[in-house]
Amino acid sequence: MNYKMILRLICYILRVEAVCLVPPLGISLFLGERDAALGAGLTILLCGALSLTTCFLPPRTKEISPREGFLSVALCWVVVSLAGGLPFFFSGAIPNFIDCFFETVSGFTTTGSSILTDVEAMPKGLLYWRSFTHWLGGMGVLVFLLAVVPMGKGRNSLLHVMRAESPGPQVDKLVPTLQKSAKILYTIYIAMTLIQITLLLLGGMPLFDSLTISFGTAGTGGFAIKNDSMAGYSTYLQAVCTVFMALFGVNFSIYYLVLLRQFGKVLHNEELWLYLGIMAGATALITWDIAPQYNGDLGQSLHHAAFQVSSIMTTTGFATTDFNLWPPFSKMILVTLMIVGACAGSTGGGIKAARVLLLFKSGRRSLKRIIRPRQVAQVHVDGQLVDESVIHNTYSYMVFYSITAILSMLVVALDEQSLETTITGVLTCLNNVGPGMDMVGPMSNFAHLSWLSKLVLSFDMLLGRLEIFPMLLLFMPGAWKRS
Amino acid sequence: MNYKMILRLICYILRVEAVCLVPPLGISLFLGERDAALGAGLTILLCGALSLTTCFLPPRTKEISPREGFLSVALCWVVVSLAGGLPFFFSGAIPNFIDCFFETVSGFTTTGSSILTDVEAMPKGLLYWRSFTHWLGGMGVLVFLLAVVPMGKGRNSLLHVMRAESPGPQVDKLVPTLQKSAKILYTIYIAMTLIQITLLLLGGMPLFDSLTISFGTAGTGGFAIKNDSMAGYSTYLQAVCTVFMALFGVNFSIYYLVLLRQFGKVLHNEELWLYLGIMAGATALITWDIAPQYNGDLGQSLHHAAFQVSSIMTTTGFATTDFNLWPPFSKMILVTLMIVGACAGSTGGGIKAARVLLLFKSGRRSLKRIIRPRQVAQVHVDGQLVDESVIHNTYSYMVFYSITAILSMLVVALDEQSLETTITGVLTCLNNVGPGMDMVGPMSNFAHLSWLSKLVLSFDMLLGRLEIFPMLLLFMPGAWKRS
Repeated sequence: MNYKMILRLICYILRVEAVCLVPPLGISLFLGERDAALGAGLTILLCGALSLTTCFLPPRTKEISPREGFLSVALCWVVVSLAGGLPFFFSGAIPNFIDCFFETVSGFTTTGSSILTDVEAMPKGLLYWRSFTHWLGGMGVLVFLLAVVPMGKGRNSLLHVMRAESPGPQVDKLVPTLQKSAKILYTIYIAMTLIQITLLLLGGMPLFDSLTISFGTAGTGGFAIKNDSMAGYSTYLQAVCTVFMALFGVNFSIYYLVLLRQFGKVLHNEELWLYLGIMAGATALITWDIAPQYNGDLGQSLHHAAFQVSSIMTTTGFATTDFNLWPPFSKMILVTLMIVGACAGSTGGGIKAARVLLLFKSGRRSLKRIIRPRQVAQVHVDGQLVDESVIHNTYSYMVFYSITAILSMLVVALDEQSLETTITGVLTCLNNVGPGMDMVGPMSNFAHLSWLSKLVLSFDMLLGRLEIFPMLLLFMPGAWKRS
Repeated sequence: MNYKMILRLICYILRVEAVCLVPPLGISLFLGERDAALGAGLTILLCGALSLTTCFLPPRTKEISPREGFLSVALCWVVVSLAGGLPFFFSGAIPNFIDCFFETVSGFTTTGSSILTDVEAMPKGLLYWRSFTHWLGGMGVLVFLLAVVPMGKGRNSLLHVMRAESPGPQVDKLVPTLQKSAKILYTIYIAMTLIQITLLLLGGMPLFDSLTISFGTAGTGGFAIKNDSMAGYSTYLQAVCTVFMALFGVNFSIYYLVLLRQFGKVLHNEELWLYLGIMAGATALITWDIAPQYNGDLGQSLHHAAFQVSSIMTTTGFATTDFNLWPPFSKMILVTLMIVGACAGSTGGGIKAARVLLLFKSGRRSLKRIIRPRQVAQVHVDGQLVDESVIHNTYSYMVFYSITAILSMLVVALDEQSLETTITGVLTCLNNVGPGMDMVGPMSNFAHLSWLSKLVLSFDMLLGRLEIFPMLLLFMPGAWKRS
């Protein structure tokens, strides 16, 4: 085990986190939020100090194995969440450290489930930090590292790291060099975020709101800075978010193809069509279902349906209305969308449209095999043969996903909430959505759950964001042995 | 396509059904239930006539392909359910034919979900028939055919039929001859049913109750003949059922091994241990969780916990108490048990302990592959290598299972019931359990659902009982083409 390289990655991450805490510190100092400034300042010092001490152990080699890649990613995410919760704790804004941890995990994993009962009472500096964790976690903290930190020779062996952190059944390297891929991804990400901020500012949204809402949209996170999420904003601002949430749920390699003007490839991307198709279908069905609640006003029904579908399917989690009060059919559609999730290679969560596509296709193949046992049947996506190991991994993914969901529901059920709260609470965390239904609905929060449930749900969020395997390896003694 | 052979199987089945309707007819005549006797009588005539007309087309060959085996099984089950619903319809006891169909499908698939709001008002002859469908469906109507009807040369090609009708990832032939296997299975089945009837009679249960309750237990069905299910019976009678439900949930090849005195093989059966382990664990947890509701009376808590765990895990569905009023933790355990289900090769439903075992083992293998990519890892159960195609089929099974569950929930959600009703209603039908939670709980029924939901749930019950693939093939145009 290349422990020293893992340690070095963690120390890099802590340094990045310290730097990212400077703007929140500045905001708090500027607005005279003494406690919040103290919290951010102390955390910066602590992260800086920790990152320095661990750097005295230079690794013999920068090469790491897939297993070490998985473990590094899992460890980095746990450490970054622990450290990221400190500003809330030191400032006293969130007195309980488990709550701080839950809130920060929810931020970095771009879930957006909150334990805050009154968001508006929080210091602005901390609100900024809370939303910025979404932005950092969306594209991946280690991918960020890869894009900006010179890694020397070990750079290309870090493919395992990128693989473990990037969502989806297969990882596209956009260009042969990994670092260049990471840079392209982050450039697109930054550009799209800036466009959204601009469009929100043009619609009259205050700067602070535009920044935090855009961070939450870009990372498909969903932390709002208002108690009613986005219900208070104008229809224009809500519509901008509807579109941008959907855009950030698309595989980023699509945008790269657009930049390269390879429109043919874009048009033949099956996952994209499935994603857009489900989104359109779900919006139409919900519009029809909720119309009576909006007195038959189809325009308003469509607006709310499109916003919520975009928000839930991309696993963002903003809300313009309390969809917990919608009819059961619409709620059931939203719960299904939570599970499906966004596209692979996007900032969104869920099991990903790409996996749904693979499962459908390999399922169809099983039926064909019964009909014609002697025929060789293979699975193709976008005209390309899919390797059997990818299909097998997708199946294993689903197995662990289901087992985790059921075991988590059992533990959370100890809280004596309704089955609806328990089931949707776990699903929303595991899929990195944010709000569930009933007592964890969009106008409620997770504050009333026990510390055990909060820890289990934090674990689920990390498991969902890192697509299960890295987090599971963390708990397997065999994974830590020398090879 | 060997249509004529499929037709011949259907006609055999109708003849068996006509014969099985004679005892209900007798009971109704004896008790002077005129309408019920008329219903049974008319159905006997109709089935008999239909079975004769179709027999004028002798098949050229009795050989059938796997695909034809799957299609025959699916068709037979649909026909047998349609015909089995006629006595309820002709007698006027259930005025709506969709309700009759739902009730009969629920019977044959050994589900036990009912649309009857007042069971006790039903004529005894029809109650007997309703419970007897459980007994017939439990071990398989076509396996029954195989055991008793001389099939001539085509007999061994009927393995595909048995494969399609027997639950579990792999089919054990107990002995090399298929017909002998079927006979052994039915002999054990009849013997165990008789023992249960005797034990119930010894406990003072009336003969009619003993017969119907034993049919429901043996088939792991769960239709009761009282409105409060089994709550009104003595503790002894309930305890007998607890034990027998658990026994009928065990793989029948275990009993065959016991008869052969091969105890070593029994003790090393991994599925059996998993099944008993889950049962014991669930009983202990629920006993602890519900004790406060029974004023800390551990004996009573254990009694009710054991009964309900045995009932739900074996997918029988009897109840001694309204477990819908239990705390969420216990309810969540029961919902999990619904999904896990009984052992492969038993009369129970669910995804089966054998599949859970396979999924766990192949999941663990995926993790091992990440740790040691170059090591060849294979999956063993009971010390035997499991073929990769079995694992692959188990995965496909889970994919279709999940897709069916989600799509069904979406349709049933149109009924505007709570999410808890919708989700557990679908799960209980798909896993052939019987009662769900909330508005379809053990002391409620399915009468208030729409005809669309009832049809979807009937489809789910058939899909669950026949383990998905036969029913899916029925709807694939490709399956009907000439090969």
